[in-house]
Amino acid sequence: MSKTTTIAFDADDTLWHNENLFEEHHRKYCQLLSEYHDAETVESTLFRTEMRNLELYGYGVKSFTLSSIETAIKLTDGAIPSDELRRIIDFGKDMLAHPVELLEGVTEVIETLSTAHDLILITKGDLRDQERKIAKSGLSQFFRHLEVVSDKKSEDYSRIFRQHQIDPRNLVMVGNSLKSDILPVLELGGTGIHIPYQLTWEHERVASAPNQSTNFYELESIKQLPELIATL
Amino acid sequence: MSKTTTIAFDADDTLWHNENLFEEHHRKYCQLLSEYHDAETVESTLFRTEMRNLELYGYGVKSFTLSSIETAIKLTDGAIPSDELRRIIDFGKDMLAHPVELLEGVTEVIETLSTAHDLILITKGDLRDQERKIAKSGLSQFFRHLEVVSDKKSEDYSRIFRQHQIDPRNLVMVGNSLKSDILPVLELGGTGIHIPYQLTWEHERVASAPNQSTNFYELESIKQLPELIATL
Repeated sequence: MSKTTTIAFDADDTLWHNENLFEEHHRKYCQLLSEYHDAETVESTLFRTEMRNLELYGYGVKSFTLSSIETAIKLTDGAIPSDELRRIIDFGKDMLAHPVELLEGVTEVIETLSTAHDLILITKGDLRDQERKIAKSGLSQFFRHLEVVSDKKSEDYSRIFRQHQIDPRNLVMVGNSLKSDILPVLELGGTGIHIPYQLTWEHERVASAPNQSTNFYELESIKQLPELIATL
Repeated sequence: MSKTTTIAFDADDTLWHNENLFEEHHRKYCQLLSEYHDAETVESTLFRTEMRNLELYGYGVKSFTLSSIETAIKLTDGAIPSDELRRIIDFGKDMLAHPVELLEGVTEVIETLSTAHDLILITKGDLRDQERKIAKSGLSQFFRHLEVVSDKKSEDYSRIFRQHQIDPRNLVMVGNSLKSDILPVLELGGTGIHIPYQLTWEHERVASAPNQSTNFYELESIKQLPELIATL
């Protein structure tokens, strides 16, 4: 059996599809505003609004919806009819109500790894939304702890590890975001396994991957995870 | 020393003012819509929207803001100008950015009780907003655990008590809501101390107080708490 005792997983875009729903919202949103501005202007203005509101709102669909409404009012100088703003609210509700679509191979991998390791889930965003997705995923019973956090900086990981008496040197974190899942855990002495998703939100992009480190791995698919874990 | 080992506190309207901010939003909101409808119609329609969205959105200021926008569009048949919707977004931001105003006597009481008991904070709402308020309150260092939950039903309390290995029979819960703070804890065999706030949101009202029980107490002010705790 491998020395790794605890495996922590990110959820959105690591276990289930998420960014594709935001992408779909962006597409419909740009379409809605296309008579006022080109898609590039809409996208960049929305991103700036989101970043300005991040400290106050935090992550998640409700924050995104509020920033989308604010941006639409601004970009149209208040000319957008309110039934179109109502459509933006509905886009958000559709995202919240959307079924959870697991990535290929997830259930088998999680089930397999849970027999020899403690699994924990560490995800950021709206509390209610993340709890609902965890429940819908059918995976809760395989995780020893479920942690919804408002941010994923190294101090957030540190607090979780301390609370559950986990030594980061015996921990592997698996996720699609170098910035939120991998770098903060490497900083604490843990191991990071990066499995990129097909899409990355601009805010989660980092300039470069970590330096080659014995604690950093990259995989193409979660299906390769049990084999790698067995070698650690 | 009393047998009570752990004292759990609700936060909003138990340690700091909160409902007064919502009340202020309601006043400004009714004013904004006063040329379309009387305040009673506005209030009852907003409440129905909030209840319909509760399962999807959960509690908190962002949910409230989204429901306020949705209701304003509906009540004006889409005639509300978008700069007025922008004002509703700003009301919500003002609430999120508002300073935390502790109730009278809170700091002294919490500091005193923390010397002989484990204190935990159990609050529901937006994760980011509640964490920010806890930080702003200056009280974090007195609490052993801070728990932000998406709901406060008996199963939510049960999960927290299990996680921290707390026997509810040795626990006292202090809060302003009979429905969310007191009844679920009495159900689990704990002790409930109800300290009503000057305002109660309609959703938190219950038809009647618990039957006289040896585990239920009511106080007028948190300043009376140490004396009561000493007798338990």
